[in-house]
Amino acid sequence: MLKAKVQAEALKNVIDTTSILVDEVKFRINPDGIYLTAVDPAHVGMIDLKLKKEAFEEYEASELELGIDLDKIKGILSLAAPKDIVSLTYEEGEKRLTVQINNLTRKISLLDTTGMTDSKIPSLELPAKIIVNTNELSKGIKASEAISDHIIISADTENFELVAEGDTDIVNLKLTKDALSLLECKETVKSLFSLDYFSDMIKVVKNENIVLYLGTDYPIKMEFDIAEGNGRAIYLLAPRIESE
Amino acid sequence: MLKAKVQAEALKNVIDTTSILVDEVKFRINPDGIYLTAVDPAHVGMIDLKLKKEAFEEYEASELELGIDLDKIKGILSLAAPKDIVSLTYEEGEKRLTVQINNLTRKISLLDTTGMTDSKIPSLELPAKIIVNTNELSKGIKASEAISDHIIISADTENFELVAEGDTDIVNLKLTKDALSLLECKETVKSLFSLDYFSDMIKVVKNENIVLYLGTDYPIKMEFDIAEGNGRAIYLLAPRIESE
Amino acid sequence: MLKAKVQAEALKNVIDTTSILVDEVKFRINPDGIYLTAVDPAHVGMIDLKLKKEAFEEYEASELELGIDLDKIKGILSLAAPKDIVSLTYEEGEKRLTVQINNLTRKISLLDTTGMTDSKIPSLELPAKIIVNTNELSKGIKASEAISDHIIISADTENFELVAEGDTDIVNLKLTKDALSLLECKETVKSLFSLDYFSDMIKVVKNENIVLYLGTDYPIKMEFDIAEGNGRAIYLLAPRIESE
Repeated sequence: MLKAKVQAEALKNVIDTTSILVDEVKFRINPDGIYLTAVDPAHVGMIDLKLKKEAFEEYEASELELGIDLDKIKGILSLAAPKDIVSLTYEEGEKRLTVQINNLTRKISLLDTTGMTDSKIPSLELPAKIIVNTNELSKGIKASEAISDHIIISADTENFELVAEGDTDIVNLKLTKDALSLLECKETVKSLFSLDYFSDMIKVVKNENIVLYLGTDYPIKMEFDIAEGNGRAIYLLAPRIESE
Repeated sequence: MLKAKVQAEALKNVIDTTSILVDEVKFRINPDGIYLTAVDPAHVGMIDLKLKKEAFEEYEASELELGIDLDKIKGILSLAAPKDIVSLTYEEGEKRLTVQINNLTRKISLLDTTGMTDSKIPSLELPAKIIVNTNELSKGIKASEAISDHIIISADTENFELVAEGDTDIVNLKLTKDALSLLECKETVKSLFSLDYFSDMIKVVKNENIVLYLGTDYPIKMEFDIAEGNGRAIYLLAPRIESE
Repeated sequence: MLKAKVQAEALKNVIDTTSILVDEVKFRINPDGIYLTAVDPAHVGMIDLKLKKEAFEEYEASELELGIDLDKIKGILSLAAPKDIVSLTYEEGEKRLTVQINNLTRKISLLDTTGMTDSKIPSLELPAKIIVNTNELSKGIKASEAISDHIIISADTENFELVAEGDTDIVNLKLTKDALSLLECKETVKSLFSLDYFSDMIKVVKNENIVLYLGTDYPIKMEFDIAEGNGRAIYLLAPRIESE
């Protein structure tokens, strides 16, 4: 059973953050909140997301798994103002989730969750932690996209850096310790990533800052709050092996 | 003869309201104002529109019929600010209508009106009259478009309702008597309509409210003011026969 | 050697003004500023542009020619706010120009300038000089584009006029002496131009007014300031010969 009311913008945030990786997802619902994990079809990116019951206006739920087509929720949410209250209701045995916004209702058919495996963010020792301004990061990504489809992310004791190398041109975003909210890095770390995935991930982050965990030839982990701190999302992005 | 001056937004309103059904139309002009009727090529939708001489800044006309390509008027109007004065002039025997906005003039060739028949809104006994908020209606339409291409519009003594049924999902907009400006309905009425047409018609309505007349398996009639009450438009939309 | 700092909007203005005619251009740099000329591949339009050192926040340069791919500069400039400072640096012998905006750097590979000929605006005796509002001109162009791909520009002692003739319709923008900032014209002048080129040229002009020089069956010359008067651009557009 699920009876929940939440501001449209909080739910939209959850859906947008997830839908860059997958079209369908299994919501794992329990009395404490909603939880989901997913890996994209190419197994390059991963998400682990939690929306706590404190993020809701009202929340009552038993343990439950719901298979959701994200586009369907997106569609109905696009008709809501950010502060509109979205009501989600489901009774055991029903084939549809009822989504209501003011006078408007959509009954969304649920997906079979049998084939949806539970992913789990692996525990990784990533030696560098950096808190960086999302807007600065976005500019570095956009400039890089003009010349390459991958990007080197590196850090040392003094700097955090993005570098993209094209056939003839080079783009580089260099942020010194002073330009970062945090730089914890004792050794030089450096990994190569797909620009597409990294760009999609950073685009959905509405927060001023994002926490990055980085190693050498290791995945990058990105962490940020959602729903004003009543939830958090983690992205994990696998490195690409440099061809040189 | 026609010598008329009108605010661009009033004329734009007339053109937009008409062009969802037809590309070309016959303006019937007389000393009291401009009048037009049209049926779309598939004979599903119909418009009956009147712009009274009070809607004009200046108006002088003899009895006249002008065949107009609506896209041409739209093009020149797109260059006008809403409050710009548009001058329309025509002298008996000329082949073009002169449209002037400030220093800019377009002489628009007139169409042969011989083949353009005069339609007339049939008089119908529609038992329900509902005044509904256009914005609410639009949300119901947009949500419905995601899952179906037709829509059931119904009313009873207590509620007005839109329902769309897709293969797996259901969308429903339910407005109780309290959420409506008016609900005059003694028996349950219910008809099925093409969502495309209904959507196009509601989209052009800039008014806060629209008056709907509804029956069972009967056309729906929609009425709204244009030009701040100095004109009015009526749409008639034929029902679709339910396949069940 | 080049070490220059300039507001993004001034540099963007230079690039936009040039890129309607060519994709690549040779910047001729000397201690007084940056200078460029270019002719489009069809030899219909020409530009002559100067950005004086006074337009820069800092400027130090020796005599130099740099072959630039305009799209590359445009790309990096699109990430700058209008007042952001763009730093341009180049040392003799390097293969790339370094463009830096805050923490972001792009090293842009230079093009071989060997094949880039120096054009020169020919000196022409154009009998009419007109200063016209750019916004009025734009409306005349947009209305004309709906019906034709060329335009007649004319002036006499009392009026400046644009006329476009379509198969059935006529568009005309007529500005009397009173509606113009300046009209110096002793005889009637009239030339026909490609609307595409004229439209592209007027679109990039951000100034309130533009100075036009006009003759009969002669090129039109357009002059306007850039970088708040610390630079100026000249377009020359060849006439089309009327087929009648």
